[in-house]
Amino acid sequence: MVRSEPFRPAKRVAGQKQDVWTIVNEAATASPVQPIINMGQGFFGYNPPQFVIDAAKDALNKVECNQYSPTKGRPRLKKAIADSYSPFFGREINPNTEVTITTGANEGMLSAFMAFIEPGDEVIIFEPFFDQYISNIEMPGGTIRYVPLQPPSNGATQKTSAADWTLDLKALENAITPKTRMIVLNSPHNPVGKVFSKSELEAIGALCVQHNILILSDEVYDRLYYVPFTRIGTLSPEIAALTLTVGSAGKNFYATGWRVGWLIGPEHLIKYVSAAHTRICYSSVSPLQEAAAVGFEDADKENFWDDSKKEMKSKMARFCAIFDELGLPYSEPEGGYFVLANLGKVKLPENYSFPPHVAERPRDFKMSWFLIMELGVAAIPPTEFYTDTNAHLGEEWLRFAVCKNDDVLEGAKERLRGLKKYMS
Amino acid sequence: MVRSEPFRPAKRVAGQKQDVWTIVNEAATASPVQPIINMGQGFFGYNPPQFVIDAAKDALNKVECNQYSPTKGRPRLKKAIADSYSPFFGREINPNTEVTITTGANEGMLSAFMAFIEPGDEVIIFEPFFDQYISNIEMPGGTIRYVPLQPPSNGATQKTSAADWTLDLKALENAITPKTRMIVLNSPHNPVGKVFSKSELEAIGALCVQHNILILSDEVYDRLYYVPFTRIGTLSPEIAALTLTVGSAGKNFYATGWRVGWLIGPEHLIKYVSAAHTRICYSSVSPLQEAAAVGFEDADKENFWDDSKKEMKSKMARFCAIFDELGLPYSEPEGGYFVLANLGKVKLPENYSFPPHVAERPRDFKMSWFLIMELGVAAIPPTEFYTDTNAHLGEEWLRFAVCKNDDVLEGAKERLRGLKKYMS
Repeated sequence: MVRSEPFRPAKRVAGQKQDVWTIVNEAATASPVQPIINMGQGFFGYNPPQFVIDAAKDALNKVECNQYSPTKGRPRLKKAIADSYSPFFGREINPNTEVTITTGANEGMLSAFMAFIEPGDEVIIFEPFFDQYISNIEMPGGTIRYVPLQPPSNGATQKTSAADWTLDLKALENAITPKTRMIVLNSPHNPVGKVFSKSELEAIGALCVQHNILILSDEVYDRLYYVPFTRIGTLSPEIAALTLTVGSAGKNFYATGWRVGWLIGPEHLIKYVSAAHTRICYSSVSPLQEAAAVGFEDADKENFWDDSKKEMKSKMARFCAIFDELGLPYSEPEGGYFVLANLGKVKLPENYSFPPHVAERPRDFKMSWFLIMELGVAAIPPTEFYTDTNAHLGEEWLRFAVCKNDDVLEGAKERLRGLKKYMS
Repeated sequence: MVRSEPFRPAKRVAGQKQDVWTIVNEAATASPVQPIINMGQGFFGYNPPQFVIDAAKDALNKVECNQYSPTKGRPRLKKAIADSYSPFFGREINPNTEVTITTGANEGMLSAFMAFIEPGDEVIIFEPFFDQYISNIEMPGGTIRYVPLQPPSNGATQKTSAADWTLDLKALENAITPKTRMIVLNSPHNPVGKVFSKSELEAIGALCVQHNILILSDEVYDRLYYVPFTRIGTLSPEIAALTLTVGSAGKNFYATGWRVGWLIGPEHLIKYVSAAHTRICYSSVSPLQEAAAVGFEDADKENFWDDSKKEMKSKMARFCAIFDELGLPYSEPEGGYFVLANLGKVKLPENYSFPPHVAERPRDFKMSWFLIMELGVAAIPPTEFYTDTNAHLGEEWLRFAVCKNDDVLEGAKERLRGLKKYMS
């Protein structure tokens, strides 16, 4: 009975399992090597570009930029996004009806689930997945069906490509039931770095059209691709009618703490996402919306998108050189700023002491702990992004974020050379 | 069946009734008097204090202030809030366990409901209510029990006090059932301007302790009170154990678009609010958290709290002079920046043409529309904040926000003199 347990939480927040970020931070604090070089979480080790910072400062001087924005977002930002994305979509995006601003991509995705998921509806996601998807789907009462990406069969012995993480279309089709309401895509993919090919997206899109499944396409790394990039929402009018595309100013402009995201899609979907967002956050942060608007307006003039992609690709090459040097296989990313390295060749010393909550997790958690404690380099164990059933697919890998300054990357490489003595 | 209705929204967002903000904006656009003087929504007509703006600009220069903050908030802000509020609570607030930062007070309150409300649980709120409460309670499946504040019996004929809007304790007690999980308080109150007295809060608190009801105390106008202000969370250890207190940097520092709020409460409640917030928004906007931290650190040195209260009280007096002049009764606020004026004496012309969606609403909606169209002054009809059952309690009043520059207030007063010809 309620009244005898006043502090009992709702089930949706009751599970307080230690998440990967807590474990990694705990190890980082406990490590004898200080300071830790943190290549774990995907925040940038440098500032947004100066023209965007300056725009934020200008906005702070304006009364209307410090007060409530319209719940759907500032008109200037919606227009800047519509203008920037219309060429990609091959049609004029209506800024008033087909774009809505959210409090980061994360709350944008929650808004989409809140808009369309009723208790018992099913949502399909691929493994590995971005961990926030889970609670965001479960909050409105959704049930998740998992379809694992198949890792490259030779990923433990040689350098592979993120393209070699493949979708078993048959498995996807088998996961579809009459209750399937939505599917979540993520391209470029975190943590795999895969950019889904046009033909993969066409096959997924065809299934969604056939079964009337809404597509939530998380494209927050959309300006960082190193192979041709296709947006599923552009493939056909039938697919477009089902598709919500998610973007992030934080990822685009190196400002993960700004909490400005958006969704682009047809009016018949966007209006309900807006309605959900209004009920969740009311409106989003005004001065940084204004700065993001200027970011989009001036990005081409500043050659920002090209420079941004070139810079990240060069960071990726710079960092991955250490794995080539060590002879450690890795999965070469097609997009984004994460790289998965396969540490199957690294032998954890027998009888190495792990705390119980690490010892009970798969090998990648132990490897992550070990790297932090012995070498002072933090990386993320990808089985955090798997269900228990499929965790074995990820347990030899670790995820490194390369969106850091070059000296940090060089420092990490120097420390990772210490792995040699654990490789036979 | 789902698959034949792919665009059907979830029930929680399906109701798309035109809300008061849409109607007021629509009238403002259609009015022959331009520009409208907007005393409707409670945004500030002026900037945050310069020392807080400067702190935001400084933060934008720092890499770590542009990236993800910890999900529970930046340590500097949590400490600044704990330091600022510990004297009010008469004990040391632990910044790490008893404070959590949210994306505005709104998302903070949603986080609290998500943390504790299971489908079928009941939440008590007073009428009139801040409209966002409703969807925030219904999203996790809560059912609302309404208890109306009783307006002053002589409010239509003479100036009264916000203190004269009284709580019928018997009605509150009758609203409590075995399913009652939470009660929402709001002091200083929007839109009434009432500051609940210590004895009222003691009586409410006693009922909550007796029935083990959690108290969510929305105190976002907590620095703007013109009579003694009591925080319910300070009344006794038993009440404190049940109480979450909500605050807002947007309201405190004149920056409603910044989306930085917080909850203060005992660890056994705050930890679940944090958990819900993490699932909703992940983290909150970093540079403006940093600016809010400086705001709290330096407010006393800048004499900001005293000046702020003095300034708002003087705006209230400046604006309310027009009602004295016109002989229109109003309810003198004890706190906050809203004033309710009673327009019962104003006769709407017979056969005045209202659009159907206004014509079907109570008299205050018609009065609001009329004022915008004829005088060019926007105010909010308070029956938006009532259930249909109790709307009659509010239909003679209009809510004016005085958080505007003095020349705007004077402009509004000049226009409101036009009411004379509609008063007999």
